[in-house]
Amino acid sequence: MRNNDEILALFENYLAQISLPKEPQQLYEPIIYSMSGGGKRIRPTLLLLACEAFGGDVAEALPAAAAVEMFHNFTLLHDDIMDNALVRRGKPSVFAEWGENVAILSGDAMMIYAYQLLRGVPEDKLARIMDIFTPMALQVCEGQQYDMDFEHSQKVSMAEYMNMIELKTSVLLAGSAMMGAVIGNASESDCRKIYRYALELGVAFQLQDDWLDSYGTEEELGKRIGGDILEGKKTCLMQQAMSHASEEDRDILRTTHLDPALSEEEKISRVKAVYDKYDVPHTILRMISSRFERAVAILDTLDINKERTAHLQVFADNLMDRKK
Amino acid sequence: MRNNDEILALFENYLAQISLPKEPQQLYEPIIYSMSGGGKRIRPTLLLLACEAFGGDVAEALPAAAAVEMFHNFTLLHDDIMDNALVRRGKPSVFAEWGENVAILSGDAMMIYAYQLLRGVPEDKLARIMDIFTPMALQVCEGQQYDMDFEHSQKVSMAEYMNMIELKTSVLLAGSAMMGAVIGNASESDCRKIYRYALELGVAFQLQDDWLDSYGTEEELGKRIGGDILEGKKTCLMQQAMSHASEEDRDILRTTHLDPALSEEEKISRVKAVYDKYDVPHTILRMISSRFERAVAILDTLDINKERTAHLQVFADNLMDRKK
Repeated sequence: MRNNDEILALFENYLAQISLPKEPQQLYEPIIYSMSGGGKRIRPTLLLLACEAFGGDVAEALPAAAAVEMFHNFTLLHDDIMDNALVRRGKPSVFAEWGENVAILSGDAMMIYAYQLLRGVPEDKLARIMDIFTPMALQVCEGQQYDMDFEHSQKVSMAEYMNMIELKTSVLLAGSAMMGAVIGNASESDCRKIYRYALELGVAFQLQDDWLDSYGTEEELGKRIGGDILEGKKTCLMQQAMSHASEEDRDILRTTHLDPALSEEEKISRVKAVYDKYDVPHTILRMISSRFERAVAILDTLDINKERTAHLQVFADNLMDRKK
Repeated sequence: MRNNDEILALFENYLAQISLPKEPQQLYEPIIYSMSGGGKRIRPTLLLLACEAFGGDVAEALPAAAAVEMFHNFTLLHDDIMDNALVRRGKPSVFAEWGENVAILSGDAMMIYAYQLLRGVPEDKLARIMDIFTPMALQVCEGQQYDMDFEHSQKVSMAEYMNMIELKTSVLLAGSAMMGAVIGNASESDCRKIYRYALELGVAFQLQDDWLDSYGTEEELGKRIGGDILEGKKTCLMQQAMSHASEEDRDILRTTHLDPALSEEEKISRVKAVYDKYDVPHTILRMISSRFERAVAILDTLDINKERTAHLQVFADNLMDRKK
């Protein structure tokens, strides 16, 4: 069985031999730019690892792996327009580099091309793969819409927030894992379990992402601490604090990032003081651990030899220990 | 065999029973708005007529018909952002009504939902249908990109222009017809022919659209004559004139719509005078006839009884005699 690095090398090799049309240049060049712009290839790696864990032929799963990566990059192109984000993976976003119209249309083409890639899965599994891929893709759109809704809404419960990150982030991991399992001929029951494994893991990952932004080290995060606080972003820390804080403290949470009298350092420490007062960082850390442990515990219940799940265990560990 | 009106009624009935999720509202409400906003249902009608012409079961083709209509409406949502178009079918566009982010994301969901609908075709034909749908969808994006490129380019040949309208408009008709034929169990050869029929018809339709805007009557066009000229749009009339006019006349074509000293009437008649000087309207009319005749001639070569093609003949006639 291949380890994560070997799987990744196989995937990069497959991606490199995909030949997109050259013309019209403004349509296809941004796609190549986006797909070759790095990224950790988390979703295709998981898909391929899941396939191999069940004894499947990784070669048969490569088209689906490329499809989920193409789909993921499509969402980034359109999200960057909606978020007005000029930088992606340390380079100008497609939106910044080519403008909005190109980012819309190239994104559309990527979405469609994801289905073109998906068409390459074994034909007897195509219908089942589409039954995973398409609802998953719709859920990602739903998650993005809830995320935008929440930015303008005064009151969001922690349950609504968790549902949003599940849709926006986790279902894509979960669907990837499940597609890999299907192509690897896993049983129905194991397909559902591997879906659940990746879903829990995805939530843990997203919660940790928020936690690190305020409580990590710069080395862990790969950028300066406190960015989310300075942007007034509605992270899980913020949601958790808002649902437990006094009216007075909620005011601090709502307004601190906008206060022109405060330095960045003061803003960060003032908000974190409220988080600490309500034990938010520990609560979130407990939620992360709980989700992570649930995820890896599922691996032990799969109907395959324990050594076959070793790489999925490593994948989970790597994901949570990420450095940008 | 059902006539066009009966086919259309069947389709509207099928569309009406599709039940989209209710939440998130900002994602799904614009989809319902767009899909129930009228439109002539040209593509699904053609798909269903083609299916029935070959003796297929129209019920089996309804999901694909809904998919092409959903796809077509998706392109309108995103095109309206790119063109900054505030009105669509006499109502505010989704872009105007909900803003750009909603139009992007709801459009994305429509594109994905088109594949959800496509999944409803008979499973033994799913792979073949996807092999028509996905390349067709990519070509539509290519056509839209060429269209945007041409707006900023000084020199576009008539051949490049024809290629653009073929991609942007005709391949969607052609692919629709071919999918209907495949579901109707037409032979490979007839599938290719019906594709060609719809492709030629689509080009004729698009050329006539341009022609009517300058040379039609207000009644035929459903709006005031000369809109394209006032916008300085690069129509087939403009392309044809630009490739034959003297440098001096080309200057008139390029600059008239921008001249603040001229009234709208003067702008229109000045540009049309150049068109007339180079016999552009007749040239375009000849091109329209030639394409239209090629299209209907193909119907006679199909490997089915002539009376089975009657509704496709009527479809072609109706399309070219359209009133908005």
